[in-house]
Amino acid sequence: METIEAAPWNVFKTACPSRQIFERISDRWTGIVLMALEDGTLRFSELKRKVEGVSQKMLTQTLRALERDGLVTREVFPTVPVTVEYTLTRLGVSLLGTMQQVRAWAYANIEEIDAARGQYDQRVPNA
Amino acid sequence: METIEAAPWNVFKTACPSRQIFERISDRWTGIVLMALEDGTLRFSELKRKVEGVSQKMLTQTLRALERDGLVTREVFPTVPVTVEYTLTRLGVSLLGTMQQVRAWAYANIEEIDAARGQYDQRVPNA
Repeated sequence: METIEAAPWNVFKTACPSRQIFERISDRWTGIVLMALEDGTLRFSELKRKVEGVSQKMLTQTLRALERDGLVTREVFPTVPVTVEYTLTRLGVSLLGTMQQVRAWAYANIEEIDAARGQYDQRVPNA
Repeated sequence: METIEAAPWNVFKTACPSRQIFERISDRWTGIVLMALEDGTLRFSELKRKVEGVSQKMLTQTLRALERDGLVTREVFPTVPVTVEYTLTRLGVSLLGTMQQVRAWAYANIEEIDAARGQYDQRVPNA
């Protein structure tokens, strides 16, 4: 039942470090914020504008986690007010590629998912 | 600034259907439960055993959402007690491929992320 790539890691085990990393990557905002940096460095305010619906607090938390994981770098410029810029690292760019594939899958399958939902809601009216 | 694949969808816009689908895919359990079905059909109890840490309630909710999105099929057998089996659909298998790439990225980069965290925690002791 084990796949070859699962050794020695196993995402199904709560104690495996891969599980925690997979959950971090699967965080609601991680992928979207990474992709918001796909065209290059952005200031905090630019990121906030680009990623609709993200609160100041969630964006701050997400960027701090991305920085801690080595996925983005944070540069502070002593302007008034202070300017903070975020850039993907080499590791961040490599995860970006994977996230772009998730997005491409979503873009490619919107209609099919919508159709499945319509059928389900007719079949299971109280869902 | 727009990438080619973004047209007509745009994951950065809260009103775009792709955003909601991306967030569904990025749910904490969606990817892990999809991958738990990678070797074939499983019963609910088998899934529950395989996916460590998932509660009965979360697994039920996740499977219902996956069924509604057309990613898994659910078959009920009138045994005592009733047997319920879950299988990936063709659409589910296609998303599975993408999720396996996310997992492969996690497996491949655990050490690098751990090292980045160690450096960050030394640099920012109160984080």
